[in-house]
Amino acid sequence: MVLRIAIVGCGVVCRGLLKILRDKRTFLMENYGFEFIVTAVTDKFKGSVMLDNGAGLDIDAFIEHIEAQKPINEFPAEDAITGLGSVDTIQRAPADIIVEVTFTDVKTGEPATTHVKEALKAKKHVVTTNKGPTALFHRELAQLAKVNGVQFRYEGAVMSGTPIFNLMEFCLAGNDIVEIKGILNGTTNFILTKMEEDKMPYEEALALAQKLGYAEADPAGDVEGFDAMAKVIQLANIGMGGDLTEADVEREGITGITMEDVEKAKAEGMRYKLIGCTRKSGDKISAYVRPEKLPLSDPLAGVGGAVNALTFKTDLSGDVTIQGAGAGEIETGYALLIDMLAINRELKSQ
Amino acid sequence: MVLRIAIVGCGVVCRGLLKILRDKRTFLMENYGFEFIVTAVTDKFKGSVMLDNGAGLDIDAFIEHIEAQKPINEFPAEDAITGLGSVDTIQRAPADIIVEVTFTDVKTGEPATTHVKEALKAKKHVVTTNKGPTALFHRELAQLAKVNGVQFRYEGAVMSGTPIFNLMEFCLAGNDIVEIKGILNGTTNFILTKMEEDKMPYEEALALAQKLGYAEADPAGDVEGFDAMAKVIQLANIGMGGDLTEADVEREGITGITMEDVEKAKAEGMRYKLIGCTRKSGDKISAYVRPEKLPLSDPLAGVGGAVNALTFKTDLSGDVTIQGAGAGEIETGYALLIDMLAINRELKSQ
Repeated sequence: MVLRIAIVGCGVVCRGLLKILRDKRTFLMENYGFEFIVTAVTDKFKGSVMLDNGAGLDIDAFIEHIEAQKPINEFPAEDAITGLGSVDTIQRAPADIIVEVTFTDVKTGEPATTHVKEALKAKKHVVTTNKGPTALFHRELAQLAKVNGVQFRYEGAVMSGTPIFNLMEFCLAGNDIVEIKGILNGTTNFILTKMEEDKMPYEEALALAQKLGYAEADPAGDVEGFDAMAKVIQLANIGMGGDLTEADVEREGITGITMEDVEKAKAEGMRYKLIGCTRKSGDKISAYVRPEKLPLSDPLAGVGGAVNALTFKTDLSGDVTIQGAGAGEIETGYALLIDMLAINRELKSQ
Repeated sequence: MVLRIAIVGCGVVCRGLLKILRDKRTFLMENYGFEFIVTAVTDKFKGSVMLDNGAGLDIDAFIEHIEAQKPINEFPAEDAITGLGSVDTIQRAPADIIVEVTFTDVKTGEPATTHVKEALKAKKHVVTTNKGPTALFHRELAQLAKVNGVQFRYEGAVMSGTPIFNLMEFCLAGNDIVEIKGILNGTTNFILTKMEEDKMPYEEALALAQKLGYAEADPAGDVEGFDAMAKVIQLANIGMGGDLTEADVEREGITGITMEDVEKAKAEGMRYKLIGCTRKSGDKISAYVRPEKLPLSDPLAGVGGAVNALTFKTDLSGDVTIQGAGAGEIETGYALLIDMLAINRELKSQ
C-alpha cells in the first residue's frame, strides 16, 4: 500500500520532512516497506497545491521551488488544484495521513487543534510536531482518533527527533512510570552551561543563544519556563494519564539564577538545571518546572548545551535516561517519519 | 489469545520474569491485551516440570517452591510431567514462546544456541537474555527464525532491561546508524568511578565490586574487556548489519589504567571510560573495546557507577544517548517481557 501524505504548514519542519522523504525513498521502501506519495502541501501565507494524479508531487522540484521562496500556488504541476485553505485541504486531499506542522500557539492551540480535529473526523491519521494540541487537548483528541479508528501521533512535540512517546509506547511498555524528569528546553540549558563553563553573564549568554537561533526575540517562553511547562503537561497527561492544565503546574524560570548561585553550586559539586518534572503518587499526578541544583552524579547534570534529556523512573526497567536533540530541521522532520513508520507498521500487519 | 510460555533455565533471570508475571497479570491484560500461562520450566541442575492442563503453573506457588530451594521435579501439580531435559521440553511443551535463560557461555554459545535452534525449528518464538547465541550466531539464527515464521528476540543480551534492540527497531527506525558507542560493562565502570571519585586503588575497587556482586570471582571477563567485546559484536552485527567475530575486534581492558592515568585525565578535564564502539565506514563495519579519555562534555563521561550507556550516531535523529541499568533480577526479567509484548503486538494485529 502506498501511503498518501498531505502537509499542513510549509515552514522549516515541512522542509526537513520533505528532504528526508526525497533522500530516503529507496531505503524506506527496502527496509520498512514504506511507500508514499505527497498529495498536497498547504500554508496559510505561502499558498497551497493539491494533486490527485496518483503520483503526487515531484518532491525534488517542490523543495527547489520553496527554497527559491516562490508561492506554492505557482508550483508547476499538471491538473494541480491550488489556493485551497488548510481545512479544505485536510478534508479534500486524497490522503491517508495529515502532517500538521503549522505555527505553535500554546495559549490557544489554534489553528493546529482545528486541523487535527478535522483530519481525525475525516478518518485520516494525524502526525504532528505541534505541542499546542497535545498540551491543551490531548484527551479529547486521543478519544476522537479512537472513535474514528485512526492514529494521532506527536513524537516531535517534545524533544523533536529524540524518541520519547514512541519510547514509552514500544520500549518501556509494561512498566509503571512513576516519574518523568528532565531538561526540556535547550535554550535555557545552553544559557546555564555558558554561565557555568565560561563564566558568561546571563544577559550575554541569552544574547548568544538568540544570535545562534536557539532563543526567540522575545525569550520569555524559554527563560520563564513556559516552553518547558507545555512539555511537562504533555508528559504528565500522555505518559502518566494525568489531566493537568497550566494552572496545575508550579512554574519558575531561570531569570532569578545569578552567577553567584551558579558558582556556589559548582563549589558544592552541584549544577543548576531548569528541570521539568511530573510525578505519580497514588492516583495523583503533579508537575513542576523550576531550577534545581543537581549532584554531578545525576545523569541530567552532565547534559550540557542546547540539548534535551529525560529520565523515566519505572518499576521494572529502573531509571532510563535518554538524551538527544531538542530541535533541528532534520531531527524534527524525523519525528514525523518515525510516527509515519509506526502507522505503516500497523497498516501493513492488518 | 493466551500466550503459552515455557522457560529454559531457572536462575535469577527466570525468577525475575516470574515475579513480574505474578505481579503484573492484570496490568498487562488491561493495558496491552497480554494474556499468558507458563506451561513449563526446565533447568539442567534443578529439574523440570511441564503441564498440559490449559491453566499452566501456579506462578505464586512455583516462586515459593524455587525460593525454598526445592527440586523443580517435586513441584506439586496434578498431571505434571517431570524430569524432561531442555531440548525435550522445548520440543514437547505446549508453548508459543520459549524463554531461553540458561548460563551464558560466550566461547561456544552452548547450550543456549542449541536451545534457540530447536525452538525456532519447532516454530516457537524465542526470547532470550543470553548473549552467547547472538554474539556468535546471530545471522544464522535470525535466518532460521525467518524461515520458520517466528520471532527471535534478545533485548536483555545487552544492557538488560534498558531498551537497545527495541529502541533501534521501533524508535530509531528510518535512520542510518553510523556509530554505536558506549559503556557496556557496569563492573569496570564502577571500578573506574571509584578510582577517580574516592581515589580507591584498582585492587580495592575490584574487591569492592566483587563484594557487591558486580564482578565474578574471576574478573577477567569484565576487566579484560571480554564482556564488553561480546556486546559490541552484537551491536555491530545486529545494529549495523556486520558479520564480525572476536578476531575482528581490537580489545583492551582496564588493567593497564593506573591511578596516575586517572588523576592526570582529571586534571585535564577528562575522564577514562572503558568504551565499546562499532562504526560503519562505507560497507565496512569495525569495532573495538578500549579505555578512552573522554571530555566531560561527552554524554558518556557523566555515566558513573555500575551503569551502562550507549550513544547512537544517526543521520536523521542526530546523537541519541540512552543510559540505564546493565543488570538486575527485575530489570533483566523485564527485557524478556518487552520482547514478549512485541510478539504479542504482532500476533494480535494479524
